[in-house]
Amino acid sequence: MSLTVRIDRLRRDLEQVSRFGATAAGGVSRTSFSAADRQVREWLAGAAAQAGLTIRTDGIGNVFLRVDGGEVGGRDGGEVGGGDGAPVWTGSHLDSVPDGGALDGALGSLAALEVARRLVEERVPVRRPVEVVVFADEEGSYHHLCGSTGLVRNYSADELSGLRGRDGDRLVDALAGMGWDPAAATRTAVRPGAVHAFVELHIEQGPILEARNAQIGVVTGIVGLGGGELVFTGRQDHAGTTPMRLRQDPLRGAAELVTRLPELAASVSQAAVATCGIVSVQPGAGNVVPETCRLQLDFRDPDRDRLLALEQAIVAAAEQAAGRHQLRVSYHRDSITDPVALDPRMQDLVESTATRLGLRTLRMPSGAGHDAQNLATLAPTGMIFVPSVAGRSHSPAELTTWDDVENGGNVLLAVVHALATE
Amino acid sequence: MSLTVRIDRLRRDLEQVSRFGATAAGGVSRTSFSAADRQVREWLAGAAAQAGLTIRTDGIGNVFLRVDGGEVGGRDGGEVGGGDGAPVWTGSHLDSVPDGGALDGALGSLAALEVARRLVEERVPVRRPVEVVVFADEEGSYHHLCGSTGLVRNYSADELSGLRGRDGDRLVDALAGMGWDPAAATRTAVRPGAVHAFVELHIEQGPILEARNAQIGVVTGIVGLGGGELVFTGRQDHAGTTPMRLRQDPLRGAAELVTRLPELAASVSQAAVATCGIVSVQPGAGNVVPETCRLQLDFRDPDRDRLLALEQAIVAAAEQAAGRHQLRVSYHRDSITDPVALDPRMQDLVESTATRLGLRTLRMPSGAGHDAQNLATLAPTGMIFVPSVAGRSHSPAELTTWDDVENGGNVLLAVVHALATE
Repeated sequence: MSLTVRIDRLRRDLEQVSRFGATAAGGVSRTSFSAADRQVREWLAGAAAQAGLTIRTDGIGNVFLRVDGGEVGGRDGGEVGGGDGAPVWTGSHLDSVPDGGALDGALGSLAALEVARRLVEERVPVRRPVEVVVFADEEGSYHHLCGSTGLVRNYSADELSGLRGRDGDRLVDALAGMGWDPAAATRTAVRPGAVHAFVELHIEQGPILEARNAQIGVVTGIVGLGGGELVFTGRQDHAGTTPMRLRQDPLRGAAELVTRLPELAASVSQAAVATCGIVSVQPGAGNVVPETCRLQLDFRDPDRDRLLALEQAIVAAAEQAAGRHQLRVSYHRDSITDPVALDPRMQDLVESTATRLGLRTLRMPSGAGHDAQNLATLAPTGMIFVPSVAGRSHSPAELTTWDDVENGGNVLLAVVHALATE
Repeated sequence: MSLTVRIDRLRRDLEQVSRFGATAAGGVSRTSFSAADRQVREWLAGAAAQAGLTIRTDGIGNVFLRVDGGEVGGRDGGEVGGGDGAPVWTGSHLDSVPDGGALDGALGSLAALEVARRLVEERVPVRRPVEVVVFADEEGSYHHLCGSTGLVRNYSADELSGLRGRDGDRLVDALAGMGWDPAAATRTAVRPGAVHAFVELHIEQGPILEARNAQIGVVTGIVGLGGGELVFTGRQDHAGTTPMRLRQDPLRGAAELVTRLPELAASVSQAAVATCGIVSVQPGAGNVVPETCRLQLDFRDPDRDRLLALEQAIVAAAEQAAGRHQLRVSYHRDSITDPVALDPRMQDLVESTATRLGLRTLRMPSGAGHDAQNLATLAPTGMIFVPSVAGRSHSPAELTTWDDVENGGNVLLAVVHALATE
């Protein structure tokens, strides 16, 4: 079968959607429940109507566009109503980080829409319903993977009340501002077995596919994620009057730890990463030896034991550095998110489909978090990556070639079709 | 002669003055031309009147309390009106850094007041006038060593208009707010030869006297001071998806440079220091490999050539670090302030006076800037240091024992007396 996406239409959709929240730098700021998010939701409703898809939004803002198995297959006389009738889900998210790119989330969402349109317009016989899912607040303006978490388990009213945005604004107020009933946000979980399978197309957001000259990434799992803060404390002194050898400068210990991060990550695995993205030096005066230096750490590994070993290695190295420079150091773990393995059968399906389409594949873990890690607890889940030029993401420099967009769309369409005819 | 300060009175003065701008942490915030500065100026006028000293404030806010040579000596029939009649100056400053200590500046100012009072009340015969000088804005709320700079050279009206405080407020508005004519701030320079000699008592603000078990520091000069900013630039990337070996993380280069600062300082001299007190990492998100890391540097050495060699060594090391981590680095020099040697005869006078009083002395450079470095261009200038407990300063933890305060006051009194009878 040579069912393929219409790349001209998918490209036009991506370009249109990138205008909602467009920034001067050429990127996109479309944070959850913002004016731009509202615009893209209206646009999506219009596109669904035009394509003949029924639309539904749940209490936390997840949007579902449905292709009914019976209806679609039925019109052409195909086999109708497979097995338990559980739908195949495919999709991603349409919110973005502040000053992000045009593809993170939008590619998987709009390619899923294109997949649904192709199934409808080609009257492809399927046994199961197909639903395009656009998850709310994946980027965590209020909560990391907010919408897909609400599919796995219901939020309590208390938890919802406590969720706040960057500016301290409450999620429940944002939901009410969308015209929705915040109480409905406590009733979003789906029952076990309600989903037959889930597949998400996404840009890699890293440089590995490009470096390995692969066209399709077959995602093996989502890496485990740890976060924590190291605080080095020394002694505030006058920068002019305190000899170098009599100082207890917390920046010395912090700098030594930072220089060791690559070696510490490599000590647990080649896939491990450790990043310090936030540094705060106090009191922060040019002529004062600092009192404290805080490092916010992000560390990841596909294996939970190795993730914890990495955390331990970082803390041990920090303590060594503190000892060498007569400092105190404390560590506060913010969170550990366990790694998630994706379904082996789904990996095989993605890989064999891409290979059949003549594309070079690479099995790889995802270093970034995705809604797929929540969905993996509900149903067999797969992810398809396409290359990011120079690995850039969460930036206006985010870019994937149109050839790779088309390849990703075609793999997604074929995988969804295969799942829907099971 | 056993002329000594009255330590009970000096202590009471220090304690009283420490209440103007007292902070909850036990320190002092008495920045220039603030309400607390106004209070201490009123207090000083009252103390001058009580002691029979004439008071005068110049256009930039420097205060002078005068003991007339003829008058003092004259009342007792001593030798009157020495040589050219140029006065001996002694003093320091009464402004503080935000959240500073009670002694930085206040000790030298109030000890000078006590010296003047002792000369007057003991009717000590002197040949020259003695003037207590309290310099305005030494701590540079508007300009580093602001008041003493105005004694060395006149500010232009344009330069004055451009001087602004931490909050962007203008110096000329602050002067007008004190009830002064800002135009008078352009006419403050004193003529060459107008001052016979200057001597300033100050806390060391460092740990050297304590470490060397000395009671009086004989200051040989003020170290040269350099300031500049290093900006390491790499590539912003996703912290989860970018393998460690494919990163261009500017923090790696910056951290490597910071760890090398002690070795770079030691490469030019044992007295050299290099400090990074301000670090800024952008964009500053926990899950983003940073794009830039800025380091604000402060580096000092008693010798100008070595100071410049230190700057060069730091920049070269930064470039090496940048090269190793595939970064770009740029350096912007903010300023170089030349070192100042203090008058050898004044050093000998301070040393011999302290030794005669049975005190252990140590010759040492000052790592901090002082008004004395400006005065040294006007007249033979000396500085007397007393120990700082644990070397703490610019902090509420700033402390000097009352014994050391008394020792410093007595050395100052004897030195001023010797100079005034030359």
